[in-house]
Amino acid sequence: MNQKIARTSTKSAGLNEQTDKPHILNLPLQETHVDRAPHTYERWLVAKLMRMAGSPPIRFRLWNNDVIEPHEMPARFTVYLADPKALYALVTNPNLAFGDLYSAGRLDIEGDLSELMEALYRAIHQARQKWPRWLEALWRNHAPRATGLSEARENIHHHYDLGNNFYRLWLDQTEMQYTCAYYEQPDLSLERAQQAKLEHVCRKLRLKPGMTVVEAGCGWGGLARYMARNYGVTVHAYNISREQIAYARKQALEQGLENLIEYVEDDYRNISGQYDAFVSIGMLEHVGKENFPGLSELIKRSLKPNGMALIHSIGRNRPMLMNAWIEKRIFPGAYPPSIGEFMALCEHGDFSVLDVENLRLHYARTLSAWMERFNAAEPEISEMYDEQFTRAWRMYLAGSIAAFRAGSLQLFQVVFTHGDNNQLPATRQDLYTFPAAPENT
Amino acid sequence: MNQKIARTSTKSAGLNEQTDKPHILNLPLQETHVDRAPHTYERWLVAKLMRMAGSPPIRFRLWNNDVIEPHEMPARFTVYLADPKALYALVTNPNLAFGDLYSAGRLDIEGDLSELMEALYRAIHQARQKWPRWLEALWRNHAPRATGLSEARENIHHHYDLGNNFYRLWLDQTEMQYTCAYYEQPDLSLERAQQAKLEHVCRKLRLKPGMTVVEAGCGWGGLARYMARNYGVTVHAYNISREQIAYARKQALEQGLENLIEYVEDDYRNISGQYDAFVSIGMLEHVGKENFPGLSELIKRSLKPNGMALIHSIGRNRPMLMNAWIEKRIFPGAYPPSIGEFMALCEHGDFSVLDVENLRLHYARTLSAWMERFNAAEPEISEMYDEQFTRAWRMYLAGSIAAFRAGSLQLFQVVFTHGDNNQLPATRQDLYTFPAAPENT
Repeated sequence: MNQKIARTSTKSAGLNEQTDKPHILNLPLQETHVDRAPHTYERWLVAKLMRMAGSPPIRFRLWNNDVIEPHEMPARFTVYLADPKALYALVTNPNLAFGDLYSAGRLDIEGDLSELMEALYRAIHQARQKWPRWLEALWRNHAPRATGLSEARENIHHHYDLGNNFYRLWLDQTEMQYTCAYYEQPDLSLERAQQAKLEHVCRKLRLKPGMTVVEAGCGWGGLARYMARNYGVTVHAYNISREQIAYARKQALEQGLENLIEYVEDDYRNISGQYDAFVSIGMLEHVGKENFPGLSELIKRSLKPNGMALIHSIGRNRPMLMNAWIEKRIFPGAYPPSIGEFMALCEHGDFSVLDVENLRLHYARTLSAWMERFNAAEPEISEMYDEQFTRAWRMYLAGSIAAFRAGSLQLFQVVFTHGDNNQLPATRQDLYTFPAAPENT
Repeated sequence: MNQKIARTSTKSAGLNEQTDKPHILNLPLQETHVDRAPHTYERWLVAKLMRMAGSPPIRFRLWNNDVIEPHEMPARFTVYLADPKALYALVTNPNLAFGDLYSAGRLDIEGDLSELMEALYRAIHQARQKWPRWLEALWRNHAPRATGLSEARENIHHHYDLGNNFYRLWLDQTEMQYTCAYYEQPDLSLERAQQAKLEHVCRKLRLKPGMTVVEAGCGWGGLARYMARNYGVTVHAYNISREQIAYARKQALEQGLENLIEYVEDDYRNISGQYDAFVSIGMLEHVGKENFPGLSELIKRSLKPNGMALIHSIGRNRPMLMNAWIEKRIFPGAYPPSIGEFMALCEHGDFSVLDVENLRLHYARTLSAWMERFNAAEPEISEMYDEQFTRAWRMYLAGSIAAFRAGSLQLFQVVFTHGDNNQLPATRQDLYTFPAAPENT
């Protein structure tokens, strides 16, 4: 299978003519066939690598089909390495190399990719507490890219302007939600779970007809349309992704919601006016920690005295840099804040935090639904881009499922308001009086 | 009224023979009758004091009945000062002097005490952002007392061993809950709102029969009994307040729950064993910030792999020292953490925060219910202690209502678990399926 991939991955990895940055690609594809026996020190390196990673249940199959079994526990997965240089890359920079080698087809997996990643994350999480300093330094994730006004545009363009046709293949068909769904029942379809998420968010904001809402980072505009349609509010929705805004406007027009929604192709930092609600779903991860105080001040001045704010974001149990491969290849500039850093943002604006909900396993489920559709659309996606792109995205989705399942990533929904606002919801009972996604929808 | 108070306040202010620290008392009662006209600079001091405090809607009536009206807005309250030294104390150390002077009867209020305090807190909160450094330094609250093992005993003894008979006069009659109730309906009686709180906590912990629970700081043991009685769990409940433990044991025996509950008269730091749930209601405020890492590690080792933890505590929107008077006279060693400091505690143990709920206005309501009963029992309380004690406690209750209403204090319920625990509640719907305090209870 590797040989095949290596031979077919010759198309351009990127899609956008506007940028010459390839979406993935760094390590060259291995064209040379290597079948020499591994040296003793190469076998030692594999064993050492696995020990340092906390002895996950993984065996290695090397380029000449030699198999290296770990000693500690029965292996549930096999990692295939196509050439010695792949091994060296993995040893010196595993965070980056694992994804790159997999994308290039120089590393392959026998077994379920996301299950392997989960086992790996869990093992590493335990092991890293005992890592010597030199290893921590060697393997650490680097700092994320800058997120100034112009870099933010590039960062977002890199990912979100991959083409609406691409995302339509595997996101929900109703609102194109590229954020965590809310599985109020475990067996909901992706469509209903995304609808439940939108409803859950509206309820948490306690929206009433005639209210005004500002949304920072609106994706394809689904939440804004849901709010306008179901709650009769007017929404100013900001996004710097060109393609998403174009899609959002078209949809609003088709649904006759153009008088209630203004989609603004601009940076959230340029939000003006005062609103009854501030909402941001899946943008904070891209804001950059250094911009949290600014965001906090922006929310403070954008929110009316009794206004409610909700931020929904991927987060962490404690501060940690983004996985290097994800940050470099998939989400440039991304930094999911720890719960403490999230709360520091709220403290900075003297806000009162009313409600924090962690939907971690809901994101694992959402990602699994996406992955299922992604896999089904794989021939089409490989046709649109190439196989290397498809493999990179499969790694990204599988790795994300694993990260949420292993607890490396969290999903926080945080509701807050001005510190002196006493017009508060009495309890949270009103969020649960009837299903967020009733059956007839 | 002041004269009367001053004359009758001659009994010992303390109750416990074990300590010679008076519970209140610092400024001498003013016996001398002062009726000279205020000097010009004294009038200027009053005006200056009010401006620095953000011009709250308060007028002053001085010892000779001269009234000083603020310029900025119509006064809703009158503060009476019995003598010039009271004014000087107020100007140089308002945080401490306001409560002490009120307790001593040298400062009195015309109007609702808690409403006055709320107006004052709101004004000061705005004003202090513009305070010059020297004023911030002069008026700042001092650091709280130490909370080492022996100091903690003294601190807790100071407040919680005032006598069960005293607390019985104004707490709920069912479980003697001296923490925030949960008004799932706004018109609940104190008894039902406290029951709803206990039920809400049990639901958040997802208790099941046969589980084991450890409780840090169990008060009069009401939660432990509620859990054992209604959820069939076994509870180890820790408290260093002698009187409370004695009461709790007696109650458990009377209710036939002695086989399910062990009340341990010991510091939470001596908790041993592993449990399905860790719970602490209203103890974190007394733990001291410097002990948060230790508490976090204790919870980490006390919680089974899939165990759930809940901490319920007074908190802040951002770090701030405890009000000096409360810390000195009422709650030695108290420090309500900011939400960020609370989350730092969770981060330290690599916990995953699942749920944060802010019950701020529920505490204002709880305190109002206590105050109503306290006021009704005032003759009895003044008989038990003395009028100065009664006035100090009235100030403490009124000031606390005000602090929760003005947003100076928050009430956080935080649910968390080990970072790698995947046995999580799917949603929070199960907390709201039927009333926490049904009518027939």
